[in-house]
Amino acid sequence: MARLTVVRKLQIAVIGYNKECSEIASKMAYDVGREIAAAGAVLVCGGLGGVMESACKGAKENGGTTLGIIPQEEFSYANEFCDIVVCTGIGFARDFIVASSADGIIAVGGGVGTLIEMGAGYMNKKTVVAISGTGGVAEKYGGKYLDERNHVRILTAPDASAAVKIILEKKKS
Amino acid sequence: MARLTVVRKLQIAVIGYNKECSEIASKMAYDVGREIAAAGAVLVCGGLGGVMESACKGAKENGGTTLGIIPQEEFSYANEFCDIVVCTGIGFARDFIVASSADGIIAVGGGVGTLIEMGAGYMNKKTVVAISGTGGVAEKYGGKYLDERNHVRILTAPDASAAVKIILEKKKS
Amino acid sequence: MARLTVVRKLQIAVIGYNKECSEIASKMAYDVGREIAAAGAVLVCGGLGGVMESACKGAKENGGTTLGIIPQEEFSYANEFCDIVVCTGIGFARDFIVASSADGIIAVGGGVGTLIEMGAGYMNKKTVVAISGTGGVAEKYGGKYLDERNHVRILTAPDASAAVKIILEKKKS
Amino acid sequence: MARLTVVRKLQIAVIGYNKECSEIASKMAYDVGREIAAAGAVLVCGGLGGVMESACKGAKENGGTTLGIIPQEEFSYANEFCDIVVCTGIGFARDFIVASSADGIIAVGGGVGTLIEMGAGYMNKKTVVAISGTGGVAEKYGGKYLDERNHVRILTAPDASAAVKIILEKKKS
Repeated sequence: MARLTVVRKLQIAVIGYNKECSEIASKMAYDVGREIAAAGAVLVCGGLGGVMESACKGAKENGGTTLGIIPQEEFSYANEFCDIVVCTGIGFARDFIVASSADGIIAVGGGVGTLIEMGAGYMNKKTVVAISGTGGVAEKYGGKYLDERNHVRILTAPDASAAVKIILEKKKS
Repeated sequence: MARLTVVRKLQIAVIGYNKECSEIASKMAYDVGREIAAAGAVLVCGGLGGVMESACKGAKENGGTTLGIIPQEEFSYANEFCDIVVCTGIGFARDFIVASSADGIIAVGGGVGTLIEMGAGYMNKKTVVAISGTGGVAEKYGGKYLDERNHVRILTAPDASAAVKIILEKKKS
Repeated sequence: MARLTVVRKLQIAVIGYNKECSEIASKMAYDVGREIAAAGAVLVCGGLGGVMESACKGAKENGGTTLGIIPQEEFSYANEFCDIVVCTGIGFARDFIVASSADGIIAVGGGVGTLIEMGAGYMNKKTVVAISGTGGVAEKYGGKYLDERNHVRILTAPDASAAVKIILEKKKS
Repeated sequence: MARLTVVRKLQIAVIGYNKECSEIASKMAYDVGREIAAAGAVLVCGGLGGVMESACKGAKENGGTTLGIIPQEEFSYANEFCDIVVCTGIGFARDFIVASSADGIIAVGGGVGTLIEMGAGYMNKKTVVAISGTGGVAEKYGGKYLDERNHVRILTAPDASAAVKIILEKKKS
């Protein structure tokens, strides 16, 4: 009898603004969620509002699977579009867990928390793609190296579909 | 148009022996995984070997969904039956995350790490069910209060099906 | 010229009741703090109230040095007898850090959080001494193995001086 | 009788290069350690090599007190100039703890880990001072806001003495 093997799906993290989220970033995040769903990957995020919520909504309304890794230790803090919630209880140190739990990371706008997640991804040589035109740290650091070690450049993509494509191709190679 | 709402599935954690896992505990863990799948809940665990791996296998071979929350920061440490892997990178402090991320917890055998997970669940007043006859800390602490505050007794169940049933009923009430 | 070398002082953790602390446990904790100071060791604790606060007071009133490792990320949660405060911001997962940061651990009463710290110490094969007659988990688990692997027995001591002595001797051997 | 009160000393974190540390950064870090000791503050750091080790050495050779908060769970990873070692066992998520445990932060050179610590400090509105001419992220981000919220600018100072002075003055105000 053939042995069952689970082939783990790709896990793609979406990072960005929490509360103070612009309309542009919110729409782009929705598109990123939709594209991750279309690629058959699992959407990983910090589980809260703004970009995280819009991305989860985009994935859920398009048949995807969503995982929210939240700072708090109670489920109720997660946005309602998370299929599975990981309640870390470790505060914003959970940013490291979001980055470690991703095969690739897509940034949409974002403040310093998003920068920290980009940094944690960069440290572990993950593919990090910032979507152009979404403002915040995605705009500020896209196309750059975060430090002088020049591990991996923060890549840029013009839209959601291109961003997901970059991550899929990096994993194949 | 009706609004999409995601009703988060119940998340049930299975905790117990890692490597030094008895045959009895391994078989029981498989059954627990199968029953969690049958209940339509998500199986949450520490993502490594022994009871965690057998439970994931039981869930996967019966159409369930499995989440492994591992101590390490690389995916490769997870057992192959995890659909989704959360790479915490925080070492055994991840035991707290396993407990916080569960609506209810089932213990099958286990050493001191399992005791810590039972304690973390107890601290947060989660339903914790130890399966009788599986040895280890499940046997040792089943039916008892872990401290003198008597928050919640560690419940006992004779088998996998009864254990899952207790958790489902506690959530309804 | 001779090279400067810092010989790290021994770090001894005191664990036990937080708020609901009995008079007996509080007095014993004070004595433990005093004895740790007398031994020239650094007192490590969870930095909050009850046993932690009394132990810090005992150390400070007798010339010792105290370190509080708190769950929160703001200094203000620490008791006023901490010389140095580590604000972990990771919630009760900080119990693992208290245990890892100790050369030996002394338990005075305590609830399930204290049991978790004893468990984390046990897991890392640290010397853990429970003081008899102080109630709580110190009383309940003193003299026992926490699991069936029988790594290290939770030792017992009749008083503060004997508890500190056991740890000093274990480090020498 | 007068009540004993412990006035917690100021805790100043020094962050920067770990292994790949330039001669200039190493010398500057030593000076920062010396100035922190001269100010009567406790030096907090990540406890490893490079800037962390030089800063601890500078503090110890000038009568200061040093605290190393390391990623690992064993004492042996800390540099030998740490008086007190906190073994977090949570990997690089300990960067958040270094930042939270500081009343002010001084950056000397540094790579992406240092940027993450600067970010964690910025997030909590701590005073962060980057020393000019030390290269790395201290050079790159000194004088700037890390995101568009413009919480607090990363300040700059020309040398160790000026950097410590800025932190002391900010705490008074």
